[in-house]
Amino acid sequence: MKACILAVGSEMLTPFRVDTNSLYVTERLNAIGGDVRLKAIVGDDVGELAAVVESALGWADLIVITGGLGPTEDDVTRDAVARALSLPLALDESIVERLRDRFARRGMTMPDINRRQAMVPSGAVVLPNPNGTAPGLWIERGRTAIALLPGPPREMKPMLETLVAERLAPNAGGRGLFRRVLKITGRAESDVDAQAQPVYGKWTSGPVPISTTILAVLGQIELHLTADAASEREAGAALDAAAAELRAVLGPSVYSSDGRNLEAVVGDLLRERGLTIAVAESCTGGLLASRLTDVPGSSDYVERGVVCYSNRSKTELVGVPEELIREHGAVSEPVARAMADGVRERAGTSIGIGVTGIAGPGGGTPQKPVGTVAIAVVADDEARVRTFQFIGGREMVKFQAAQSALNMTRLVVMKAPAAREWAERR
Amino acid sequence: MKACILAVGSEMLTPFRVDTNSLYVTERLNAIGGDVRLKAIVGDDVGELAAVVESALGWADLIVITGGLGPTEDDVTRDAVARALSLPLALDESIVERLRDRFARRGMTMPDINRRQAMVPSGAVVLPNPNGTAPGLWIERGRTAIALLPGPPREMKPMLETLVAERLAPNAGGRGLFRRVLKITGRAESDVDAQAQPVYGKWTSGPVPISTTILAVLGQIELHLTADAASEREAGAALDAAAAELRAVLGPSVYSSDGRNLEAVVGDLLRERGLTIAVAESCTGGLLASRLTDVPGSSDYVERGVVCYSNRSKTELVGVPEELIREHGAVSEPVARAMADGVRERAGTSIGIGVTGIAGPGGGTPQKPVGTVAIAVVADDEARVRTFQFIGGREMVKFQAAQSALNMTRLVVMKAPAAREWAERR
Repeated sequence: MKACILAVGSEMLTPFRVDTNSLYVTERLNAIGGDVRLKAIVGDDVGELAAVVESALGWADLIVITGGLGPTEDDVTRDAVARALSLPLALDESIVERLRDRFARRGMTMPDINRRQAMVPSGAVVLPNPNGTAPGLWIERGRTAIALLPGPPREMKPMLETLVAERLAPNAGGRGLFRRVLKITGRAESDVDAQAQPVYGKWTSGPVPISTTILAVLGQIELHLTADAASEREAGAALDAAAAELRAVLGPSVYSSDGRNLEAVVGDLLRERGLTIAVAESCTGGLLASRLTDVPGSSDYVERGVVCYSNRSKTELVGVPEELIREHGAVSEPVARAMADGVRERAGTSIGIGVTGIAGPGGGTPQKPVGTVAIAVVADDEARVRTFQFIGGREMVKFQAAQSALNMTRLVVMKAPAAREWAERR
Repeated sequence: MKACILAVGSEMLTPFRVDTNSLYVTERLNAIGGDVRLKAIVGDDVGELAAVVESALGWADLIVITGGLGPTEDDVTRDAVARALSLPLALDESIVERLRDRFARRGMTMPDINRRQAMVPSGAVVLPNPNGTAPGLWIERGRTAIALLPGPPREMKPMLETLVAERLAPNAGGRGLFRRVLKITGRAESDVDAQAQPVYGKWTSGPVPISTTILAVLGQIELHLTADAASEREAGAALDAAAAELRAVLGPSVYSSDGRNLEAVVGDLLRERGLTIAVAESCTGGLLASRLTDVPGSSDYVERGVVCYSNRSKTELVGVPEELIREHGAVSEPVARAMADGVRERAGTSIGIGVTGIAGPGGGTPQKPVGTVAIAVVADDEARVRTFQFIGGREMVKFQAAQSALNMTRLVVMKAPAAREWAERR
């Protein structure tokens, strides 16, 4: 099934907005064997959108159009598709009725302008929108099906799910591309690839072919495995085996193969083991606590955090001795350790983290350049302290420091060796 | 000048990658009067790319293509454009020479495969690439000019700059689109638009026409003003006047018209006035401190932050009386106020902030549903306390609460009324 995804909206032709809906649409279409060959972004112009739709009619089995279904003059998708297909538009009274009800339930009268949203090209199927006023539309023309979906993701996504389940998947015969992502931290991309390539290289010619892409994002390497399989079950079994093989080779540096991010993995480990945590951070400025508390239910294990931005606050909030700061400097392993110990003791938690460093752009010295960060993670029976040298600007240093602190916490809680030690032990 | 931007690369047709090059290209083209009418993303397929180029030849004055100029079989842009224009490709020995030199300077021999990068459609102008092996190409065909640029931003951007300066701007006559963004917080989109529309509505027909787009993003409304002017200077004067007019109508809810974000605006206000700040946060979990400390130099005014996630930590870290929590609940204005007072007093800062709320998904009650957040900002001579009801999931609630706390701080420091009071006073 060759697919084309069109995003409609002049705002996405400015320097300020990208189309991200198409990523979600692509994932869902891939899963039922859809092959996205072209994506386009078109402004709010009937003629131009109609021309793009017409040209896609020549080759595409499916055209998914998002956006331009609102009630204003700028919302041209209905008109453009009708024009491309030479179909007349007519007012659908049942849509008007639903819109009136929707407004009435909110104690409002439907503005006249919303009647535009009830205009339907002849022969189109109306797709209900439980989360907004714009109904979707489904039109078949020869080999090509055209889906018109609203732009806001919270309206578009559920409508696409229904469309996939009811109309697209039943005709797709189960075959599709299915994905799994292994997330790795604490290692370089080249290092991960050198170790992983001999493993994944042989999968492309297996009974269920799996292709692998390596993506380096900040503080993290991702291995994207894509299985081309006859069913989700077949793909699942092949991807499980593949993920296990990679985990065996890459060791504890793989922190997730089920989509969870690092803070969720750390949170789940803490919860499973009945542990609690407190953090004392300087250069990360609250980011570490914020990431830990992004996880729903984190109040079960996060007791407190302190952001010791001044030296005085390091002493007052977590009891770092002034002499220690004088002797070693605020950015040092002894101070990181004292912060972790101090916050752990005062909070009475199982784990304490201390992070102190130079996020930049100012504050660096030849001995301790911008990007130098000391991190300590302390538990009952274990403590790890390490100094990192991160690259990039202020926000990049903050993120990488928080990422490393979370990863050290993960390894302490799992009592697992870090990647380097793992590699040396093998 | 009607422009079309094409991004080439199958990886951008997966669920993992978006094309962002086009944002930069759009901005540069807009500034010389280029009107981007269509963007498309095409995979590494000669025939499909050629078809898209052919169809753009029918209407575009300029086609900018990024990517697909590498040395491998997957790099099809040269071949596709040659096919669309029916031009023969020939090896350009001078490019081969430059490539050989480039490799030699790195002590390497040029791989044979790189000869592909020296294939040039007949009549094309070669654009030098100081930052990589892929030269760009410039081809004119009737009314349409076609620019082929490499995909990596650090190669593409300087090449585009040269192209704009040497080929595009001289023909554009200085006329272009120039932008300014007004950022507003603490108000609803419809409310801002109702007040702003009568002002900006008349600008479209002025001597320097300015069009205005309103964009609602989380916790913020943006008014994008786009001036169509004969020169950057003319645009600057018109945009200055326009921004001043909108500020007069919208009052202190406009926090920035120079690109700064809210945390930077708050930071600059604190620095200008020689003030310091400390924060005590519960439901935002460190996000407020993290945003404040995202600003370079924020250690000048941020003294400390505490994340009081447990009730015990509220009492221990900032001295909130246990009875106060028992009487009013942890999520209440008295507790927010006590947190702000407590952290301010202990830190000895000019300003203290307290934030306590229910980020969800759990923890809501009928009286205090998920999204309820109490915020207090206390200064020497002023204190503001307010309860908000935010919508959305956990991270959305956290962000909006941090945004509102920053905005209340801005208004306290400026001694400015909030938007509602402003509107009522007028």
